[in-house]
Amino acid sequence: MSNEIFVKMALDGWYSQVKSADTLLNKLSDEQLMQEVSPGRNRGIYLLGHLAAVHDMMLPLLRFEESMYPALRSVFIDSPDRAVADLPPISELRAHWTTVNEKLSAHFASLSPDEWFTRHASISQEDFEKEPHRNRLNVVLVRTIHLSSHRGQLAFLAAKG
Amino acid sequence: MSNEIFVKMALDGWYSQVKSADTLLNKLSDEQLMQEVSPGRNRGIYLLGHLAAVHDMMLPLLRFEESMYPALRSVFIDSPDRAVADLPPISELRAHWTTVNEKLSAHFASLSPDEWFTRHASISQEDFEKEPHRNRLNVVLVRTIHLSSHRGQLAFLAAKG
Repeated sequence: MSNEIFVKMALDGWYSQVKSADTLLNKLSDEQLMQEVSPGRNRGIYLLGHLAAVHDMMLPLLRFEESMYPALRSVFIDSPDRAVADLPPISELRAHWTTVNEKLSAHFASLSPDEWFTRHASISQEDFEKEPHRNRLNVVLVRTIHLSSHRGQLAFLAAKG
Repeated sequence: MSNEIFVKMALDGWYSQVKSADTLLNKLSDEQLMQEVSPGRNRGIYLLGHLAAVHDMMLPLLRFEESMYPALRSVFIDSPDRAVADLPPISELRAHWTTVNEKLSAHFASLSPDEWFTRHASISQEDFEKEPHRNRLNVVLVRTIHLSSHRGQLAFLAAKG
């Protein structure tokens, strides 16, 4: 089994979830995104900002480049929904979501199979030698699962049937 | 990079999602599982049965053994929630969920790293030679993402805060 095949398996899962989230988000109006996904739970706008923030932070975590929108972190990761009164406009969050994913795709395409199995930024070289599964590709696996969880929740904002 | 490390990455994701779903399901009462996860959406009992059915069908898909509870399929995969009036009791679905995951774990533990990269049951040997990413380990990746999506929805049945 070559590294190339495992990279394809992981990236296929990632791109499939991003595409599915894009399709859903394109279907949802800004008004729908202002609603809670279920009574008393996060609003769509918060989940959109949260996903954009988490994916933005993958840029440094994968040792590609600095985060593009570091201000998202305090609002959409460190704080729960409604803790921050003034959120960025939904149109801006939609644009950030798209830009960040495109940026990630460009970096993904430039990485050789072997480079995927090097360490991510949150583990030292020393620890990585003992735990080689904590590599960049594993970040993609974990973030794909994270995206799927929130996409399943955002789906409740769409019209039924 | 050895196959063993890929397998660990994929199985870590699987076991983490199964554990997280187990923790949630153990926290939810039967009464809570009878509720819709969001107004007009699937009930918890349906999602529990759906996950048990999908995981049960992984037994033949991974070429381990026959499905243990084939009757779940028509109720929880082929039919939407409320299409079938008489569902099995929640206690039975909880038991099936646990049994099926334990059975999968036992098979997972018995498979060598190389065996994970052999074909799953829904692809012919001929096609597999052209598309080697369609292997047994990929089934685990895809089903982990599936579980995450529904676990994120079931979380709405738990008490807030």
